[in-house]
Amino acid sequence: MSDLFSHELESLASPLITWRRYLHRYPEEGWTEFATVAFLAATLERWGFRLTMGEDALCSASRMGLPAPEVLTGAASRAHAHGVESRWLGIVHNGMTALWADIALGPASQQAPLLVLRFEMDALPINEARDAAHYPVCEGFASLHHGLMHACGHDGHMAIGLGLARLLSKCRESFSQPLRVRLLFQPAEESVRGAQALAAAGAVDGAQWLLGLHIGIAAQHTGELVCGVDNFLATSKIDARFTGLAAHAGSAPQKGHNALLAASAAALGLHAISRNGQGDTRVCVGTLNAGQCRNTIPAHASMELEVRASNDSVHQWLDTEAQRVLAAAADLWHCTEKHCLAGRAPAASSHPLLRSVVQACAGRVPFFKPVRPSCSFGASEDFSLLVNSVHEAGGQANYMLVGSQLAGGHHTPYFDFDEKVLLPSVALLAQTCHALSLQHTA
Amino acid sequence: MSDLFSHELESLASPLITWRRYLHRYPEEGWTEFATVAFLAATLERWGFRLTMGEDALCSASRMGLPAPEVLTGAASRAHAHGVESRWLGIVHNGMTALWADIALGPASQQAPLLVLRFEMDALPINEARDAAHYPVCEGFASLHHGLMHACGHDGHMAIGLGLARLLSKCRESFSQPLRVRLLFQPAEESVRGAQALAAAGAVDGAQWLLGLHIGIAAQHTGELVCGVDNFLATSKIDARFTGLAAHAGSAPQKGHNALLAASAAALGLHAISRNGQGDTRVCVGTLNAGQCRNTIPAHASMELEVRASNDSVHQWLDTEAQRVLAAAADLWHCTEKHCLAGRAPAASSHPLLRSVVQACAGRVPFFKPVRPSCSFGASEDFSLLVNSVHEAGGQANYMLVGSQLAGGHHTPYFDFDEKVLLPSVALLAQTCHALSLQHTA
Amino acid sequence: MSDLFSHELESLASPLITWRRYLHRYPEEGWTEFATVAFLAATLERWGFRLTMGEDALCSASRMGLPAPEVLTGAASRAHAHGVESRWLGIVHNGMTALWADIALGPASQQAPLLVLRFEMDALPINEARDAAHYPVCEGFASLHHGLMHACGHDGHMAIGLGLARLLSKCRESFSQPLRVRLLFQPAEESVRGAQALAAAGAVDGAQWLLGLHIGIAAQHTGELVCGVDNFLATSKIDARFTGLAAHAGSAPQKGHNALLAASAAALGLHAISRNGQGDTRVCVGTLNAGQCRNTIPAHASMELEVRASNDSVHQWLDTEAQRVLAAAADLWHCTEKHCLAGRAPAASSHPLLRSVVQACAGRVPFFKPVRPSCSFGASEDFSLLVNSVHEAGGQANYMLVGSQLAGGHHTPYFDFDEKVLLPSVALLAQTCHALSLQHTA
Amino acid sequence: MSDLFSHELESLASPLITWRRYLHRYPEEGWTEFATVAFLAATLERWGFRLTMGEDALCSASRMGLPAPEVLTGAASRAHAHGVESRWLGIVHNGMTALWADIALGPASQQAPLLVLRFEMDALPINEARDAAHYPVCEGFASLHHGLMHACGHDGHMAIGLGLARLLSKCRESFSQPLRVRLLFQPAEESVRGAQALAAAGAVDGAQWLLGLHIGIAAQHTGELVCGVDNFLATSKIDARFTGLAAHAGSAPQKGHNALLAASAAALGLHAISRNGQGDTRVCVGTLNAGQCRNTIPAHASMELEVRASNDSVHQWLDTEAQRVLAAAADLWHCTEKHCLAGRAPAASSHPLLRSVVQACAGRVPFFKPVRPSCSFGASEDFSLLVNSVHEAGGQANYMLVGSQLAGGHHTPYFDFDEKVLLPSVALLAQTCHALSLQHTA
Repeated sequence: MSDLFSHELESLASPLITWRRYLHRYPEEGWTEFATVAFLAATLERWGFRLTMGEDALCSASRMGLPAPEVLTGAASRAHAHGVESRWLGIVHNGMTALWADIALGPASQQAPLLVLRFEMDALPINEARDAAHYPVCEGFASLHHGLMHACGHDGHMAIGLGLARLLSKCRESFSQPLRVRLLFQPAEESVRGAQALAAAGAVDGAQWLLGLHIGIAAQHTGELVCGVDNFLATSKIDARFTGLAAHAGSAPQKGHNALLAASAAALGLHAISRNGQGDTRVCVGTLNAGQCRNTIPAHASMELEVRASNDSVHQWLDTEAQRVLAAAADLWHCTEKHCLAGRAPAASSHPLLRSVVQACAGRVPFFKPVRPSCSFGASEDFSLLVNSVHEAGGQANYMLVGSQLAGGHHTPYFDFDEKVLLPSVALLAQTCHALSLQHTA
Repeated sequence: MSDLFSHELESLASPLITWRRYLHRYPEEGWTEFATVAFLAATLERWGFRLTMGEDALCSASRMGLPAPEVLTGAASRAHAHGVESRWLGIVHNGMTALWADIALGPASQQAPLLVLRFEMDALPINEARDAAHYPVCEGFASLHHGLMHACGHDGHMAIGLGLARLLSKCRESFSQPLRVRLLFQPAEESVRGAQALAAAGAVDGAQWLLGLHIGIAAQHTGELVCGVDNFLATSKIDARFTGLAAHAGSAPQKGHNALLAASAAALGLHAISRNGQGDTRVCVGTLNAGQCRNTIPAHASMELEVRASNDSVHQWLDTEAQRVLAAAADLWHCTEKHCLAGRAPAASSHPLLRSVVQACAGRVPFFKPVRPSCSFGASEDFSLLVNSVHEAGGQANYMLVGSQLAGGHHTPYFDFDEKVLLPSVALLAQTCHALSLQHTA
Repeated sequence: MSDLFSHELESLASPLITWRRYLHRYPEEGWTEFATVAFLAATLERWGFRLTMGEDALCSASRMGLPAPEVLTGAASRAHAHGVESRWLGIVHNGMTALWADIALGPASQQAPLLVLRFEMDALPINEARDAAHYPVCEGFASLHHGLMHACGHDGHMAIGLGLARLLSKCRESFSQPLRVRLLFQPAEESVRGAQALAAAGAVDGAQWLLGLHIGIAAQHTGELVCGVDNFLATSKIDARFTGLAAHAGSAPQKGHNALLAASAAALGLHAISRNGQGDTRVCVGTLNAGQCRNTIPAHASMELEVRASNDSVHQWLDTEAQRVLAAAADLWHCTEKHCLAGRAPAASSHPLLRSVVQACAGRVPFFKPVRPSCSFGASEDFSLLVNSVHEAGGQANYMLVGSQLAGGHHTPYFDFDEKVLLPSVALLAQTCHALSLQHTA
Repeated sequence: MSDLFSHELESLASPLITWRRYLHRYPEEGWTEFATVAFLAATLERWGFRLTMGEDALCSASRMGLPAPEVLTGAASRAHAHGVESRWLGIVHNGMTALWADIALGPASQQAPLLVLRFEMDALPINEARDAAHYPVCEGFASLHHGLMHACGHDGHMAIGLGLARLLSKCRESFSQPLRVRLLFQPAEESVRGAQALAAAGAVDGAQWLLGLHIGIAAQHTGELVCGVDNFLATSKIDARFTGLAAHAGSAPQKGHNALLAASAAALGLHAISRNGQGDTRVCVGTLNAGQCRNTIPAHASMELEVRASNDSVHQWLDTEAQRVLAAAADLWHCTEKHCLAGRAPAASSHPLLRSVVQACAGRVPFFKPVRPSCSFGASEDFSLLVNSVHEAGGQANYMLVGSQLAGGHHTPYFDFDEKVLLPSVALLAQTCHALSLQHTA
């Protein structure tokens, strides 16, 4: 079996690094991955993949947490200045930055089952570390976009996706049984905003299998592999805004309606929502900004918060509680409150059968050691939404964790993973594609 | 002038102490002054006063902060056991414990002006100190009713009222001009509950003048006198009750609606109500009781609170704010909230002309030194409601503070005033009666 | 096997009801089970059990949550008035209300293994329902002690213990292998206060097996049985007291240090302690009482609270957090704070091997249907402390849940279980004794 | 008397408008008034005033609320680009932007008394309205510095100062008695940051009289004049920063120390500080900014707050309370807290004698009608610090309010005062100078 891909894999070692570093250099935030998706599309088109993009790939109305219009416009201009061709910018304009790249393997067949692999494209609003102790600085591939950084490994995920694409495009004939493979490049995974719009456009419709992966989570030693995960936490991301009335703090404080205090009371109230005997819960008011000057009763406050739960019914309860607290805290200070959903994902778990296939394939990639069957995820990922779509339609979905030593934690300025994990990850995915192609016959 | 009353005054020295100590021994709370009012009525009837009592003296529906029916019944039984005659108990049954005692002085006249003097009768739910360092214990006149105590000096006020009554009843002929005098014995002054029901029954209707006094407030040296006060704080006394839902704190906390936390949030929110540029404010949640056992989400909480303000419009604003906070804090924890008004009194100030009359009379009672014209009261008394009634009808009202060294502060178990102040207070009131009788002719 | 005990069981049907109802009629709170323990001791002594009581049965210094001295004295007087013999009262005076009752079964042997069965004796400070819809009222066995009630089924547990005692004392010869059995009657299980003092006195030292049971928890249908439980929540019961400074709320509020607000801030802060990714947590401030009158800044507040966690390290973290919050909330309002531990129990789970023995025996008691192997407990019981003692010494411990329809929930005035469960429970315990006696030989 | 200055006044009508509009166009924030002070200095030097600037005019170490170094540098660069001569920038570099301009009037004398007049120079961080309804837009003199605006009338104050300077410089001989006049141009009045550094440098040492004024406060009709004010509120401006520990909100929230919740608890606690029976208080947390992203326990929070009081002892108490609350709220959430004083001013009142002089002079300026002797200020101004300095040294200080209709309130984007008030204000000050020069002889 290792004979199948070993030659091609070898030749990927250097390109994987190149792709990863190129992508790392030009990070783009969720819904603004204009240059990123154009680079992927142009490359995959060249390798013979059939592309689905723009309105066909993404349900516009189902997108959550879109940035302000001026952010979208600014990012598009930057991509244009970067040299992105207008034909791509036309397709993905206004945040329609999804890409499906399809290929058929093995003998032609109407009956070929569909395997979807998901890779995220978005970066984070984090200023990358600039000192020489940081490897990307050392090696000259640190972010060139001030205030943005691939600090979650999505650059690595995309490089793996490209590596797998290159391999499959060269090894189509190595498949004795027919298999359709779709590489799904997702915008706006951060804050669980993008998957819903992909699902609504049919990105995983008809998929027999769905695979996703993440570098460096839970497994923090290079070589480690967790074949599947349980306990994706359901989550809602909420943006709330409190509006009161300004007044002079010295002469007429009683005329004010204090939005800062409403938001403060809400923050404390949200964190004090009851524990739930039916499942785990989490609440985090992550940001709070209120008031404009020292001597005026603050008329405005805004907060970004999230809730999480280990199952969907507790999630539903928690959402209701949070909304009640927001409204009542506003009342407490004679303010009004509005909020909107900036992201949402359900609870989910890997399918045990598909996880077993991955586990078997991992045995054929000697790099991976130790191989752990599964773990509890304890975090949220909107991959869970795709998982549930596939499971509800009778398919199987699985999410694996590729271990890596990290220079700094996820979402921090010193984040950096070990590039040694890229090639074995491509190998594992290729093996899994092959194994699944055979499984279908059986 | 001093010739007028000096002989009679001398003979009052001993009875004043006796009356005060008798009343101190048998304290009764607001609306349960059954034995007290019966003792006063029987005495004043004997001295020739015309009495108004029961429904005639008090508007039943205007009473605030009535105790529970079983408290009323219990106190009536205690009074009966104490030997109070049924004829009195029948009149004042069910908390109708007011008494007006009228007398006409000087030559008979249809035109005689009316002077009303108000004295309070109620005691406090305080356990009197039991050690020998406490003078009432020493002298054997400490409270015989466990948990109740005359800790605000109302026993002294009533003794002064009786002394004045005795004096006037003996000196009717000393008045060259006609004057009607009404001694108004008020129930339930504590928590400003009783005056409204007196006013509604007409207790101060037609009064040319109204006088009240208090021992030991602001003036804390025996001999000191403050002739009038400004700045009675307007106040509301509110009883609030939060109702939630109980649940097992271990297995199903999410099923609970936490009334203890609603009350806690309300307490903090009430104290954080904005200051007001138009006047002083005060907020005090004085008691909070919530929950019944440690391992159940508390379904009930109750609190007693008060707000105060230096003028009526700020008072109105503060009432509204407080009610909003109570309701919103309940919402914050998914509870319901109900509250009722347990007392209410307006802002007021002494009339400067009547205050000057008192000041002039004080000059004739050598005991009083120093004599201060006025001070800011900074507290609440439902006398203010009577003051405003009289002022609105064109009369004059005044409240004076009789200085006294105190063994312990008002409303504490060691409270005790100096009995030396009783006789001079009677003298001052008698002088003022006489001065006012003459004023009218002019 | 069923032949072994069937005759004797039959004769227990009526006494079980009698014992249960007698005990229900005379409830006693934790550490005051004077009449209860005397009744049990006298009975068991008559049946030939060897008793251990007083200082021998209980480590005085390890008792938690002792009531005030006057409560102990009052309860002892009540027991004396009830006719309890002085010889018993002398032994168990001052809250030393534990009882071990030992019996040796089968052939005499120095090597006989020890089985301990634990039964709780304490009642709750709950007023039992008084209407005829309540079965104990109907049948005339409602509580005769106002304000106290067996509202958790401990009366039933004790009846089962007596039934088992009677049976074993009659069937000693039916045991072919030697077995020592200890019936452990525990005071003060409510609020997890008593087990520590039993363990410290050696009550489970040398026990090969430990068994406990509860009626009506989790399993709420008569006939249901849960053979073992996981996830006893670790817990601390804390009594906190805040001390500030009183001041007049109108004239000098700034002189006060507000203990009511300190307690309110603490309550909110405690419930807002972070969730923990390492295990479940619970927080409940069950009672809060603050202030004495409406118009004084409250100088005192007290609260009873509990924390729980699904493992001991999270429990330790939570204890530390709670203590920090209590202290800081006091500081926030310029108050001081003191607290004491009123109860504490660790996390624990049933031993799977002993649970299997129970499950096998349940098959021989046709009454039990369905029989569930185990469930998550989700609550706290200081039986967990005994469990861990036994497990640490190499023994096995198990806790079973005897299903019962309930007229009202545990710890409520309408609580009542189905008396039909008593006899089968005795049968199950007897079977388990026998099975364990045989197991040892093997 | 009006003959004295009337000719010169006439010729000032047009320049006053020009100066005001020029200054309005180029607003600069506190401690960065580089171009402003250079313009004033160059002009006053030309008119023969003796200048004191830089280290001589300002005690560097006594400055409060200095902006960050990059703000100072940026503003200096902007001033340089604006054409400000290096000789001025050298003197006022690094925020040393004060100016004293002295002139001697009348016959030369060593004994000439000193009159100081204070004018503020700083603008506010407010975006000026840009629509044509706004008069400065209409007339083309709106702010050219984005985000900065003279929204408190300091441009008008400076124009009045220049007008008075021009007048006095031309009318030196009209003074029959000697008088020294110092025009004191103060940086950083907003947030009461600058006066302390002026006083520490001796700006009002030896002053017999001190005058200040404000346009449009309390008196909001053009023509109105309030001759003096009572009740400058004492105030502290505090910047607080909370530091906790970041943690992943999903997988390990318990590792975080939540600075956002610490700040929220502090905000609520600060507003709930007790009222004070000894004087008015105000508390305002004007801004709160916490956290950086939604799914991380926030490790940082900052707030800008102010407290005010109607007298210095209550102010001292309030400062202490606020600091306790800040520290305890940090403890409550396991955070640390640091704060610094960004501004501070005492309570003060105008001197009644100097106020009377102004009132008399106002009678000679027919524009002013009605003329009110005084009012309660109810706000804070660091002029109060200068007032107290002068009063303590035996001099007299006064602050007057020049009425003006306003297009929008102070500190709002539509603020605009009526330019008609400029000339009469110069006239009033000139009359007052003259009256004081005569007074000294007497």
